[in-house]
Amino acid sequence: MLQQRSSEYSGYRNAGIRLSEEMLPHLGKLYSGRTKSMLPSVHAFDLAHTVMLIEQGILKRETGIEILRSLRRLEEEGVTEARMRVGGGLHSGEHYVIRDLGEDIGGRFHLGRSSGDLSSVGINILQREKLLAVLRGINGLSRTLLETIPKHFESLLPGYSFGQHAQPMTFAHLWLSWVATLLRDFDRHHGAYQRVNTSPAGAAIMVGSNFPMNRERTAELLGFDTVHENGADAILELTADDSLEVPMMIGILYHSMAKWADDLITWTMNEFNFVSLPDRYCGTSSIMMQKRNVIGPAEIKGGSAEALACIVSSYHALKGPTGLPITERYQALEMLWRTADNVVSHLAWLSEIIPELRINNEFLSKHVKRHWATATDLGSMLVTERDFPWRSAHQIVGILIRLCEERGFTPNDVTPALLDEASMAYFGKKLNVTQEMIDNALDPVAFIRNRTLQGGTEKKEAQRQTDLFVGMVKRNEKIVAGIEKRLADAEKKLRSAVDALIG
Amino acid sequence: MLQQRSSEYSGYRNAGIRLSEEMLPHLGKLYSGRTKSMLPSVHAFDLAHTVMLIEQGILKRETGIEILRSLRRLEEEGVTEARMRVGGGLHSGEHYVIRDLGEDIGGRFHLGRSSGDLSSVGINILQREKLLAVLRGINGLSRTLLETIPKHFESLLPGYSFGQHAQPMTFAHLWLSWVATLLRDFDRHHGAYQRVNTSPAGAAIMVGSNFPMNRERTAELLGFDTVHENGADAILELTADDSLEVPMMIGILYHSMAKWADDLITWTMNEFNFVSLPDRYCGTSSIMMQKRNVIGPAEIKGGSAEALACIVSSYHALKGPTGLPITERYQALEMLWRTADNVVSHLAWLSEIIPELRINNEFLSKHVKRHWATATDLGSMLVTERDFPWRSAHQIVGILIRLCEERGFTPNDVTPALLDEASMAYFGKKLNVTQEMIDNALDPVAFIRNRTLQGGTEKKEAQRQTDLFVGMVKRNEKIVAGIEKRLADAEKKLRSAVDALIG
Amino acid sequence: MLQQRSSEYSGYRNAGIRLSEEMLPHLGKLYSGRTKSMLPSVHAFDLAHTVMLIEQGILKRETGIEILRSLRRLEEEGVTEARMRVGGGLHSGEHYVIRDLGEDIGGRFHLGRSSGDLSSVGINILQREKLLAVLRGINGLSRTLLETIPKHFESLLPGYSFGQHAQPMTFAHLWLSWVATLLRDFDRHHGAYQRVNTSPAGAAIMVGSNFPMNRERTAELLGFDTVHENGADAILELTADDSLEVPMMIGILYHSMAKWADDLITWTMNEFNFVSLPDRYCGTSSIMMQKRNVIGPAEIKGGSAEALACIVSSYHALKGPTGLPITERYQALEMLWRTADNVVSHLAWLSEIIPELRINNEFLSKHVKRHWATATDLGSMLVTERDFPWRSAHQIVGILIRLCEERGFTPNDVTPALLDEASMAYFGKKLNVTQEMIDNALDPVAFIRNRTLQGGTEKKEAQRQTDLFVGMVKRNEKIVAGIEKRLADAEKKLRSAVDALIG
Amino acid sequence: MLQQRSSEYSGYRNAGIRLSEEMLPHLGKLYSGRTKSMLPSVHAFDLAHTVMLIEQGILKRETGIEILRSLRRLEEEGVTEARMRVGGGLHSGEHYVIRDLGEDIGGRFHLGRSSGDLSSVGINILQREKLLAVLRGINGLSRTLLETIPKHFESLLPGYSFGQHAQPMTFAHLWLSWVATLLRDFDRHHGAYQRVNTSPAGAAIMVGSNFPMNRERTAELLGFDTVHENGADAILELTADDSLEVPMMIGILYHSMAKWADDLITWTMNEFNFVSLPDRYCGTSSIMMQKRNVIGPAEIKGGSAEALACIVSSYHALKGPTGLPITERYQALEMLWRTADNVVSHLAWLSEIIPELRINNEFLSKHVKRHWATATDLGSMLVTERDFPWRSAHQIVGILIRLCEERGFTPNDVTPALLDEASMAYFGKKLNVTQEMIDNALDPVAFIRNRTLQGGTEKKEAQRQTDLFVGMVKRNEKIVAGIEKRLADAEKKLRSAVDALIG
Repeated sequence: MLQQRSSEYSGYRNAGIRLSEEMLPHLGKLYSGRTKSMLPSVHAFDLAHTVMLIEQGILKRETGIEILRSLRRLEEEGVTEARMRVGGGLHSGEHYVIRDLGEDIGGRFHLGRSSGDLSSVGINILQREKLLAVLRGINGLSRTLLETIPKHFESLLPGYSFGQHAQPMTFAHLWLSWVATLLRDFDRHHGAYQRVNTSPAGAAIMVGSNFPMNRERTAELLGFDTVHENGADAILELTADDSLEVPMMIGILYHSMAKWADDLITWTMNEFNFVSLPDRYCGTSSIMMQKRNVIGPAEIKGGSAEALACIVSSYHALKGPTGLPITERYQALEMLWRTADNVVSHLAWLSEIIPELRINNEFLSKHVKRHWATATDLGSMLVTERDFPWRSAHQIVGILIRLCEERGFTPNDVTPALLDEASMAYFGKKLNVTQEMIDNALDPVAFIRNRTLQGGTEKKEAQRQTDLFVGMVKRNEKIVAGIEKRLADAEKKLRSAVDALIG
Repeated sequence: MLQQRSSEYSGYRNAGIRLSEEMLPHLGKLYSGRTKSMLPSVHAFDLAHTVMLIEQGILKRETGIEILRSLRRLEEEGVTEARMRVGGGLHSGEHYVIRDLGEDIGGRFHLGRSSGDLSSVGINILQREKLLAVLRGINGLSRTLLETIPKHFESLLPGYSFGQHAQPMTFAHLWLSWVATLLRDFDRHHGAYQRVNTSPAGAAIMVGSNFPMNRERTAELLGFDTVHENGADAILELTADDSLEVPMMIGILYHSMAKWADDLITWTMNEFNFVSLPDRYCGTSSIMMQKRNVIGPAEIKGGSAEALACIVSSYHALKGPTGLPITERYQALEMLWRTADNVVSHLAWLSEIIPELRINNEFLSKHVKRHWATATDLGSMLVTERDFPWRSAHQIVGILIRLCEERGFTPNDVTPALLDEASMAYFGKKLNVTQEMIDNALDPVAFIRNRTLQGGTEKKEAQRQTDLFVGMVKRNEKIVAGIEKRLADAEKKLRSAVDALIG
Repeated sequence: MLQQRSSEYSGYRNAGIRLSEEMLPHLGKLYSGRTKSMLPSVHAFDLAHTVMLIEQGILKRETGIEILRSLRRLEEEGVTEARMRVGGGLHSGEHYVIRDLGEDIGGRFHLGRSSGDLSSVGINILQREKLLAVLRGINGLSRTLLETIPKHFESLLPGYSFGQHAQPMTFAHLWLSWVATLLRDFDRHHGAYQRVNTSPAGAAIMVGSNFPMNRERTAELLGFDTVHENGADAILELTADDSLEVPMMIGILYHSMAKWADDLITWTMNEFNFVSLPDRYCGTSSIMMQKRNVIGPAEIKGGSAEALACIVSSYHALKGPTGLPITERYQALEMLWRTADNVVSHLAWLSEIIPELRINNEFLSKHVKRHWATATDLGSMLVTERDFPWRSAHQIVGILIRLCEERGFTPNDVTPALLDEASMAYFGKKLNVTQEMIDNALDPVAFIRNRTLQGGTEKKEAQRQTDLFVGMVKRNEKIVAGIEKRLADAEKKLRSAVDALIG
Repeated sequence: MLQQRSSEYSGYRNAGIRLSEEMLPHLGKLYSGRTKSMLPSVHAFDLAHTVMLIEQGILKRETGIEILRSLRRLEEEGVTEARMRVGGGLHSGEHYVIRDLGEDIGGRFHLGRSSGDLSSVGINILQREKLLAVLRGINGLSRTLLETIPKHFESLLPGYSFGQHAQPMTFAHLWLSWVATLLRDFDRHHGAYQRVNTSPAGAAIMVGSNFPMNRERTAELLGFDTVHENGADAILELTADDSLEVPMMIGILYHSMAKWADDLITWTMNEFNFVSLPDRYCGTSSIMMQKRNVIGPAEIKGGSAEALACIVSSYHALKGPTGLPITERYQALEMLWRTADNVVSHLAWLSEIIPELRINNEFLSKHVKRHWATATDLGSMLVTERDFPWRSAHQIVGILIRLCEERGFTPNDVTPALLDEASMAYFGKKLNVTQEMIDNALDPVAFIRNRTLQGGTEKKEAQRQTDLFVGMVKRNEKIVAGIEKRLADAEKKLRSAVDALIG
């Protein structure tokens, strides 16, 4: 007799059945662990699949009810614990029920499916959970930024290009661009969520089975929005595009977050000193007592490096003809789960730190003018007041700045005479502007206030952008709430269906 | 006099203006070429911006009209040619008009914008053009597949997992999964298109200007669907997330295409010989006269490797604090343009080759059974006919196959007696099935026909999937047509606006 | 009093010293764990540094001895355990000794160094240990291959190019190329080992200290071959090139191993059936009873994907100006340690599996001829026997094969008449060759035996290559033994030095 | 008659020979261009192979001489031009000679080799040329640095860790670490050169041929140092490890260069202003007249991003079983040639720019003290002068700095009283140090001068490091000269051998 004693049932791969030898222990262990995080999803699938089999008459009602009761007992022990106790893995439900009730009952519910849809369901549910957590985190950080922004409509900050002072902006202006980015990140992750939340259940190993399954019903009970319409599309790496999209979406988000972390680090460098953080966010050195190392932003940068690694390892692991790379996908997913958890905690970390930043406003209000960042508006003044072609105005102010540099003058030293000197040099004419015209043009506060155009820095315009973005975040919060409700409803539906059957 | 003679005007960076020395020639050349592919978009921006400046009263009507007329003369020479003749680059329009009409006129239309929005407009328009070409290519390949599929509803093909024969499927079934993937690729690229087709025009270098610009109007004339609501979000790497999303979307698509190319290559290997292609698709060797190398699929795989490289180089190049990596982005974009062009031609290549495949149906109809791929249904038969638990049926058939392997039997050699032997070994009972029941269960044609469930392989179900996907492709073709119309309308609107002004 | 009670000493970063607040607990925990694997190396450094300080008279002899005794007590508790108990981290030795003997003694040995050289020593020692394990693994696999190869000098195998049968070769021939690759991998890893095994100790944070340290002595006691001659070169990311070289060397090795794994997987596919493995290396499926999935090679491919990811994450993490990316490096190193451990166990796995392969020689001896892989030698025969130009011979045999294909003939069906037909078609002449000449030319065994040239497949030549490679592996084994001896000697020297001091 | 007219000979793949149809033109074109850069190497191989065939008696002397004469005529037209004229590609030599002298002569020298060794020879020679150029570039930049360094032994520069001022160093000290890195880069590239400069010639497609070839002789005439001892190891992707090592070595070098570029960019930021470059290295903006953008360093960073991409694309392209990925390798090599050329010109660019840097020494001499970078030595003073445990000294100075920060004091404001206040707070004791002791301890010039230990910053020690490194660069220059001589000798030997034959 090759049939195992029920109480010792340990799975279908025993020596003497299909194969003549037991598997080498170190190979058997390879997959253990890899599916552990999927066990709750697999459990839900076991329940939903059994309910569906009963409803379709594929499984006798009384047998099905016994199975469901056994799975409920499993739950009481703790889903993951109980399943690991019987060896873990995708088939741990079957192991448990066979041990509990014997093969004649427990051997009946892995009908019309395969390890293929078990793992695909497990992967898709984990991917959707991770994506949902990211969506929440994106909204949370957006909210924090939008609450902080109105306090900084006039907190000056140099805008850079090529690492040089370009033009003045404000913290509010920059942070609004962060929110705009996060809004796109939300859309991208939401798009991925919709593609991922599709049910492979019932596609077995790629062609389904010859039993009269109701795949829509299983999908409904598992909270999937739709069903993979083609079985080959549903299973394993055949839908590997999802397993590339998820890390890529996270990668884009992480890349932006790493850039913001770089901004935070730059602003706290000694040479910048634009912002500081309370000491509880800082470390020091074992020999350099002056050190005040801000802890955290660099972690985000390291997380971004791992996100890129995750994209590359997924892409590389999945290369190969249809049906060949399977193990490799599991290995790549390990990195994905870690990356997804990291980005969620780093989103929270940014949300925690942003409101704590102490901005060195007094220093910055002078600093933004010091390196001629407002020079553009001196040119604009010549256009407006003297009807100069922009290019001529630009060249004259260019000469002016060179002269100042050569003579050690600062923006505060510009006089009408100096401007005339530049103008004379350019095309032999004087300008007749007043000192007040110059001072107004070079004033960074005026610079910010005059940018009233759409997308500009002026307070009212910044408020308009803020309000607009708040509205969009509200819409996104509703989307998340909707998803949460649908998932909770599905959970309830599954619980009720089981309850109704087991009485 | 430092002002250049109009006829020799060569740009704003001359020794004696802002800087005291001419730039080293090898540095000056660095950027040449990089913006060449953007010149048509930059030209459109020059026109749209000038129209808007006139309409807003920022530029005097008569001056504006002279500028527009000069830009029209430029067009007559050929946009790219004329602009390269005056030195190329983002400011080639200004160079041309100043040479044509002098600085007093030509120096007036680079007002309220900067190299920042010039390049951002150029990049976004190129990105949208590439994405549009990919969208068309995806639809084209989907169409080809959906036209080919109905011819192969019953063309058998082994389905693999872990590189072993898993279960039979059909070419139609596999190709439907390719279409399902392409439909998701369409959605992803369309999402990216919508995010990319947003106008940065008027955001200048990140804060806009103090002139009363109408950014909506410029956007409308350039075919953008929306406007970046925040100036910092609009410019350069501040919206770098787009420049990651585009290569990533292409990467996902390319990864699938490379997998399909791997399938094609595998199928033509001597050991497989599932399909062949006409000799016009083949090369041979300089010493191995037997060689018949299919040319092309490997190109797609190489293209996919470059697509991954493009993702990595974009991600890496753009790392750094806000406003620092700019040049690097241009370098990464060079790879993106190449990758995008490659994927479009490879989509076309797959569309060309698929209908040319000669499937070795006769061989395959036997081959799919030879390695026991239909064994699952022998188990199912025991469930259906003998009310066996699936697991018991599975184990018995497992023993059967081991016995056959040990004795050198093929699937055609299975008899009721052999099955009984396995059953006896498992739990000491006989099965009493007939030879006909066995033969039916192991017949691959029946296997395919019995998969009538949603997502299955049976002909009617395959037709249902085909029809469904045809409908979705039609919807996607309408989306593309809609985009094309909007872009054509914008082009017309811009042309009319210029015509109306210049009379 | 801000000084901590010795028995509660928990490190130098306390509120009230440099900083005014305690660090947030979740930030404090970030680094815990990351240095855990370095604790044994850090311990050795603590000992060696203290010995050197005593010898140089920087630390009073009696104080130094008390410190060494305390560190010995630490050892008795278990280095890692004792250090984790006092909070872990690079400074856990100081924590322990201060708790043990008070700050007045325990506070004295972190002199003339910093966290910078502590972590650099820790990283370099871990890197050298990993590299050493890889070197051993490379030698082990090379040995296994070289022992297996002589059994397969005449085991035929098709050689492929573009996925088509190119020419016959032997398993021995292919495996000799694997050994040749491993010999290069040894050289590469050995080069990296030599660069990595350089001592940063005493470089403190990059400029060293103003104490009269003897860096050569510390290096000697830690088993380093040389000393970083420049302090800035020694510390942290300043020598990041090492931290790129190590994963890259592993990546090259892994890439080859993944290719060999792909070969193994291909050979076990149903269509190939070139080799098989005992059942203890195999799994099966929960519904497809026929499946015999070889477990393991795919793991190697997944490991190779992670190795590429490790290269990318290291490269990306370390980007940035000197002195900025530090935390990120630690994060990337986590992946490196994992990758290094994986490659070592996968080298062992390949060494285990290669001798177990059961080669299907009988099938292969026919298979290598079936697809015309010996056709080249039919051409060569025309050159040798008929003084034909190679190109004419090549074209004639090309025509012959096309004719055979059109008429359904196999290589066994070639006759002198058929060859004449081809020759007539090419240039109107007959060839007058005999059937025997044809049969000899197309015989794969002869094909293999006639390749007596350097690098060829013939038995004696293969034996020559084998002997040559055995000699090189022996040389490499001596190199490893030499390294092991030097490290053991250094360990002894350190132990003796401490013993001599503490008496 | 299917034989082509000699004057129109276009290669061996014609309809009617092996295959029945002409190849589609767009497929035929795919490979054109890819081998263009290999034509000179392929030409040398044609010559060397023919010489060897004659010497071995495989080719009749008089025929061989005619072939050599024809190849000499080809040279007169220009190797690349003449070969492109007859269609380009690896077999362009044969095309030329057949057109010139007919198939009966020209068809005879492609004997005993295949496209396999043609392309492998071409790739290896190109790889060795690129590596040689990199070796030269590394030496050149090392030289430049070592000539510049002695001018900056006392040019102060803050050393950073975590982006904060850590301790003072000097430009010389930092640049010595760059040289140390370049010396390792030399070793790495030299190792790769030695592995790459191995001859595959005569290995044909992987098993060689049955002709009595002298592979050593061909190798000698082509300047290869050794011969691939195994034919399978020699050909195509079978030695793909080389094609990973070359981009990886370049990648490590580029990564360091990008870091140095980041340093240069950082130092020119407005907030730093540590160095400047003459205006000929700078650009400006079309609207921000103040901009002075240093051109070039960012190019290096972009180049480094592409180098990483090149590693990834090579690794990914080459994935797959032995003999399958071939086309993909060519595609990846395209990126490698570009990357190699870029790194060589960027090495030259750095060599050009370093001596031009204008260091703002006056500002820096104050700046390095401003943020307490010398604080460590205040602690050391307490150890030396007061026999304090380092840890106690460290904590006291930590308290001191916090007090100064709270009160707005700078390092120049530290007094004995303030230090006593810190000391009292720490453990209730006063210190009795003098103002002079404090001032000396905090003086950055003294700080630099006191680092006399091995690896330190002091002038004599820096000179010692410089001398040591100059010696190593000299050794490396000799290595390069040796390689150049060997290659020139081989070229001469080949020329003489041909001359001797053709008379």
